[in-house]
Amino acid sequence: MASKSSKSSPRPKTRDRILQTALALFNEEGEAEVSTVEIAAVLDISPGNLYYHFKGKDAIIEGLFDDFEEEIRQVLTAPIAKPLAVEDNWIYLYIIFEEIHDFRFFYNALPTLLDRCPSLQPRFRRLMALKQDVAKAILISLQKAGVLAISQTGVDLLAERIALQITYWIQYCSLKDPNRKEAALIHEGVFSILSQLTPWLGEDGIAYATLLEEFYESRNA
Amino acid sequence: MASKSSKSSPRPKTRDRILQTALALFNEEGEAEVSTVEIAAVLDISPGNLYYHFKGKDAIIEGLFDDFEEEIRQVLTAPIAKPLAVEDNWIYLYIIFEEIHDFRFFYNALPTLLDRCPSLQPRFRRLMALKQDVAKAILISLQKAGVLAISQTGVDLLAERIALQITYWIQYCSLKDPNRKEAALIHEGVFSILSQLTPWLGEDGIAYATLLEEFYESRNA
Repeated sequence: MASKSSKSSPRPKTRDRILQTALALFNEEGEAEVSTVEIAAVLDISPGNLYYHFKGKDAIIEGLFDDFEEEIRQVLTAPIAKPLAVEDNWIYLYIIFEEIHDFRFFYNALPTLLDRCPSLQPRFRRLMALKQDVAKAILISLQKAGVLAISQTGVDLLAERIALQITYWIQYCSLKDPNRKEAALIHEGVFSILSQLTPWLGEDGIAYATLLEEFYESRNA
Repeated sequence: MASKSSKSSPRPKTRDRILQTALALFNEEGEAEVSTVEIAAVLDISPGNLYYHFKGKDAIIEGLFDDFEEEIRQVLTAPIAKPLAVEDNWIYLYIIFEEIHDFRFFYNALPTLLDRCPSLQPRFRRLMALKQDVAKAILISLQKAGVLAISQTGVDLLAERIALQITYWIQYCSLKDPNRKEAALIHEGVFSILSQLTPWLGEDGIAYATLLEEFYESRNA
């Protein structure tokens, strides 16, 4: 693993503050619009002090990716280690969407940032593969539990579509309606993903359908 | 309609060549990596000559968007005017994907480019809505023909997912595997979209299933 654990070596405080401020500015204004000079100005530190911690914007992006990778990897690997209960699937999707929303500047400019920071390419590609593996693991556990009646090819195709939808849902909805609030769009994303399983519901799928209905109604609660 | 028809006023040749060259470079290297000076150098014209036609890179991007909008709007509105035969759906998806592939630099940096060129925001948003309307129109015509047994809510959710998948499929696959060839990834995208209709196939859905099987096999032909 290329990523360093932030727990093993406590970071200097300034380094943390730079990352937090950069993340907020990148998410708000788009990474392309924010310079290191601006980040230093918001933090009220000198550009030299910032440069001592990060040798340019790409180093900040890599630092933020380290954090993102560590957090999302922990979330993603959970259901591979221990299958989720059916009723936990929606909470799980929520957490993934929130993680992506926290680092949305990265998802908003994926091809550009990966071109500029080639060291992140294989790492991001591993996360994409992991996302698809997790979707597959969840579908297979639902299949084994009799909730889904679906073929092996069906599982593969569906896992790929779910991984794609997780990757781009927030960007897609924000482009459609820039005023849509985070909570609403994540809720709709979870519902859209879970509801596509309904046509495959098998003999033991009634509990799932009830769950989904309750979830849909909680939208308007 | 904000877009000017390129047919009503024939363009000077240099203007066309600038757009073609910019499009090729943007797609190849990413828009952020290409300067107007570079475009002029590749065309072997002076930066002043380029500036006479386009007052900067954003003007070139807007010129390319005019072309894209005109082309994709023609494609998208076709099945609204006259419903497609079931066997024409896959060709139709092919054409949309090819159009997006031709202008992929734009899709690769959507939030960034729309932030930079605010005049394109409402125009792109209208194209997104149109994409979803078309998906809905196709699903409803399949429902009416007895091919799909699906609820109204099901149609709405599915149309949204299909529109999202059309928007990001090429970017997603290119990130997963930068060496995947255009023809292969478009073929797989069409199959992935069409195959998600299978669990809703109704009484008259057998023809559709056969069609899909043939389509899948043509992959390896």
